[in-house]
Amino acid sequence: MNNKFLDKIQDRIAGQKTFVCIGLDVDTAKMPERYQKSPDPLLEFNKYIIDTTKAYAACYKPNLAFYEMYGLRGLRALGETLRYIPADIPVILDAKRGDIGNTSQAYARALFEEFGADAVTLAPYMGEDSIVPFLEYRENYSFVLCLTSNNGAQDFQKPDLYKKVAEKIQDWHNRYGNCGAVAGATNPNEIRAIRNIITEAFLLIPGVGAQGGDLENTVRAARNKNNSGFLINSSRGIIYAQDPAAEAVKLQTAINQLL
Amino acid sequence: MNNKFLDKIQDRIAGQKTFVCIGLDVDTAKMPERYQKSPDPLLEFNKYIIDTTKAYAACYKPNLAFYEMYGLRGLRALGETLRYIPADIPVILDAKRGDIGNTSQAYARALFEEFGADAVTLAPYMGEDSIVPFLEYRENYSFVLCLTSNNGAQDFQKPDLYKKVAEKIQDWHNRYGNCGAVAGATNPNEIRAIRNIITEAFLLIPGVGAQGGDLENTVRAARNKNNSGFLINSSRGIIYAQDPAAEAVKLQTAINQLL
Repeated sequence: MNNKFLDKIQDRIAGQKTFVCIGLDVDTAKMPERYQKSPDPLLEFNKYIIDTTKAYAACYKPNLAFYEMYGLRGLRALGETLRYIPADIPVILDAKRGDIGNTSQAYARALFEEFGADAVTLAPYMGEDSIVPFLEYRENYSFVLCLTSNNGAQDFQKPDLYKKVAEKIQDWHNRYGNCGAVAGATNPNEIRAIRNIITEAFLLIPGVGAQGGDLENTVRAARNKNNSGFLINSSRGIIYAQDPAAEAVKLQTAINQLL
Repeated sequence: MNNKFLDKIQDRIAGQKTFVCIGLDVDTAKMPERYQKSPDPLLEFNKYIIDTTKAYAACYKPNLAFYEMYGLRGLRALGETLRYIPADIPVILDAKRGDIGNTSQAYARALFEEFGADAVTLAPYMGEDSIVPFLEYRENYSFVLCLTSNNGAQDFQKPDLYKKVAEKIQDWHNRYGNCGAVAGATNPNEIRAIRNIITEAFLLIPGVGAQGGDLENTVRAARNKNNSGFLINSSRGIIYAQDPAAEAVKLQTAINQLL
């Protein structure tokens, strides 16, 4: 069976020469005043971001938290946003879900069927039976948290747990063909350790923008042997810039020069 | 500042003599036909469960997955359900959220402000700065996953990680006074190990019903020195029973006989 996330993302990477994932983490307090005043600020702001950046986006990644915080009207705006994104650009719903088997099935149905996401992010704490219900959606892709870019990564993920999680991700990818990892950019040596375990699957890499990771070493560590297999996410660094398109191009160009 | 979850739950335990948490994990395929045919099956079924079990419930715990899977109409039914639950019975929203700081803030706002939950469940993988935004809601309570009742608990939580997580939970509880743990009932020895670390805070214990934990040893291991500080959850075992009230009373009585 075809994987629609992989089909789309490989077309974007080959066709548009971009590895940039744009995080649609909307916050009405941070958007330009003209959108704050619109009747539907979340949707109108997202349309503006999508219109101006779509030529440079490998994919879009809305984080559900920023829509849930506005209640039903936030989730309605998310649904409209997903319908507005051109069909050839894949969408990763950043949800970090994970629960016992029958509950993860319900989440998978919510994210892949109700919202129609191409891919999702998941949290690994509850282990294999919390992840497999997502992997059973063979047309979709799941990015499991491995190493995150926040300070709290010190508490449990380091020094060893993230490697154990990476080994499981590689095992799941071997069995299902649709499991990648979230690998924060704050330490390229650790991304290299992850890439040594997860040899081919996609790494989704946050933390280059507002969180301050080092792009050059990150890209060199993250790429697979095909000089691909990674996505560099920027959220606030692009969407709240004076000129979002210019920021997206800047990141796209900087990455391409390293390959 | 008062903690409204603690105030309510202590009143329920003292007044109603119950430690039973009823999981509102609705699934239209499993509910009696008369509710399946109603114009709003989720809400009507929940009203029936609440009407028949409210005298025996220490709290209710809807798991968000089972509402998200029905899209906006599911979330609307969840909102109506929460408004229908009597104000003196606390609500734990089982969400298992956790993200970087500003994103966890957005989730906390969604769960505590938009939905008005008294308490939530959280996933610990991303560490302290993913948990603190919830604890800063001093009137609310957060149950952090420590040891879960599914097979996947073997993958990362055991043999040692859950104890490290328990130590952090105790530390957070010392600092904020509103942080408990989810501790699955499948192994009472491990619940005892958790209670030795988390000396006083509430333990939320799933896995007694459909997942098959041992009630007697679980309760003996889970209670704190005040013969309290735990909640035994049953979801499918109560709500899909022929007589949900009878099942709730049975669990309530069985627990009370052990104290």
